Amino acid sequence: METILNFLPLTEEEQDLFRLAAPAAEHRFRPVDNMLNAGEPLPGDLEKATIVLGNMSPANVAAVPGLKWLQTWSAGVDPYLAPGVLSGGTVLTSAVGAYGQGVSEHMFAVLLSLCKRLPQYRDLQNQSRWEPLGRILTLADSTVLVVGTGDLGSSFAKLVKAMGAHTVGLRRDPSKPAEGIDEMYAFDRLEEWLPRADVVALMVPHSPETDNLMDGRRIALMKPEAILLNGGRGSAVDCGALAAALASGHLWGAGLDVTRPEPLPEDHPLWRIPNCVITPHVAGGEYLAVTRSRVVDIVLDNLRRYTAGEPLRNRMR
Amino acid sequence: METILNFLPLTEEEQDLFRLAAPAAEHRFRPVDNMLNAGEPLPGDLEKATIVLGNMSPANVAAVPGLKWLQTWSAGVDPYLAPGVLSGGTVLTSAVGAYGQGVSEHMFAVLLSLCKRLPQYRDLQNQSRWEPLGRILTLADSTVLVVGTGDLGSSFAKLVKAMGAHTVGLRRDPSKPAEGIDEMYAFDRLEEWLPRADVVALMVPHSPETDNLMDGRRIALMKPEAILLNGGRGSAVDCGALAAALASGHLWGAGLDVTRPEPLPEDHPLWRIPNCVITPHVAGGEYLAVTRSRVVDIVLDNLRRYTAGEPLRNRMR
Repeated sequence: METILNFLPLTEEEQDLFRLAAPAAEHRFRPVDNMLNAGEPLPGDLEKATIVLGNMSPANVAAVPGLKWLQTWSAGVDPYLAPGVLSGGTVLTSAVGAYGQGVSEHMFAVLLSLCKRLPQYRDLQNQSRWEPLGRILTLADSTVLVVGTGDLGSSFAKLVKAMGAHTVGLRRDPSKPAEGIDEMYAFDRLEEWLPRADVVALMVPHSPETDNLMDGRRIALMKPEAILLNGGRGSAVDCGALAAALASGHLWGAGLDVTRPEPLPEDHPLWRIPNCVITPHVAGGEYLAVTRSRVVDIVLDNLRRYTAGEPLRNRMR
Repeated sequence: METILNFLPLTEEEQDLFRLAAPAAEHRFRPVDNMLNAGEPLPGDLEKATIVLGNMSPANVAAVPGLKWLQTWSAGVDPYLAPGVLSGGTVLTSAVGAYGQGVSEHMFAVLLSLCKRLPQYRDLQNQSRWEPLGRILTLADSTVLVVGTGDLGSSFAKLVKAMGAHTVGLRRDPSKPAEGIDEMYAFDRLEEWLPRADVVALMVPHSPETDNLMDGRRIALMKPEAILLNGGRGSAVDCGALAAALASGHLWGAGLDVTRPEPLPEDHPLWRIPNCVITPHVAGGEYLAVTRSRVVDIVLDNLRRYTAGEPLRNRMR
């Protein structure tokens, strides 16, 4: 009999659906307040668990001797791929596919607000000042470089295309097309496209290849009035180098929903740069009702498949 | 021979195009810094002018004895329709059609920023605070009521439709369709649709019918979590009633690029309501390069038509 540690924030009706999906299992519901938090097991949970649904800390995951399957609520699973976290036979599945709408809409809103100087107008509003700030930008006829064209990047590309942008995508295998992308190239063409893009949108997971992908040298390759967005993982941008570039007047602006480290330290210079927009890793997660539902749907579907002995979706190893 | 008072902010090359369009006329260039400012004539201008290009004050327009034609840079011409401003034979043309992209993109950016709580995140950013603010909204599957479906309203409707919204339009003659509008009704259906819309976007010119269109009673008819936008004329919203409604917790938020009066007085309560976004009438105008070019194109085309004795575009009387 399986013992399932379930860390998802579920309604009672949803808990019943999980019970139905695996009627023979013992369901231990340990809901988190917020999907961004790691789940906390109770005494005895780690010893007994065979299935974990949610993002329990890697240290706790490593301490489950009988773990057969870990299903995350997140799209990224990099902390669980570190050596020593999962034993050889443990299956790992993610919730990739649930976040495209939430993250792309959020980053699109951040992008448009930068184009129209809304953050700076907000600062004026807080001083009751009615003062035009001059020139604004449009996405019409702009070139948007989308780095990473999975669920997030492809969803984002569709939104900017609807505003009249031309989209260039970079992905590991450029022979695979993605919806919303007009031209696709391999990652190694990045430095050729940085000086040609009006917007550079990073939508990549953490990996050794994406670590510090946008360092100071590459930020300097961007057009002086380009916009840099990061909606994937904070590790893709050198936040110190970005702060220095923005402070020097390079770039029209930047929008970050993810940073390294998170939370961004209180004394980090990025906080106070007027043309930088920082949101606290809220583009994904359950803040958008439909994202939460999609995560629950994916996990529930996989649990049904597991019970039926069918292949799982979103298998990462 | 015509004497043309030209108040448009033009480059020297553009001034040459105006000279070429009316080679026999005397061109008096009196450029304004900003299209939102009224043009200032020099001594002798009013006595001599036969054509005015731009938005000179109605008092000055009334003081031009030989005025044959007034072409505004604005889409709205209501100040010039007041009794005593234009004499019987004076032709009036506007720049309607130049502002759809600029205004619709700006109001769309304001709408998305409200959906995603970006104004409130900006306030947290200014305090170096990394704190999720909870639930956010999407336009997908929402109902957007567009009041006024001319150039502005139709352009705006196309943008929200691209995000998955269903659009309902209200216009004087509902038998005339407009691009981007899924269902069209007459203005008298307003109160039936207010309780059904997730977003109410006002894109109407000033007129006796639109004056205080959204008063306290009608704002109260909106859904508790709806968003009110005003991108047309400030007179369409009772700003005092809106401030009271927002302060009471009614509505998800409001976005105003126009207010009555303008500028909004420093002590007006709307300035400090966190879920209200105020921008200083900047959605139109020359802040977006393409809007300025379109205005110049319309005025130049009409000047060529005038010289050739052809019918003018955008004739308002």
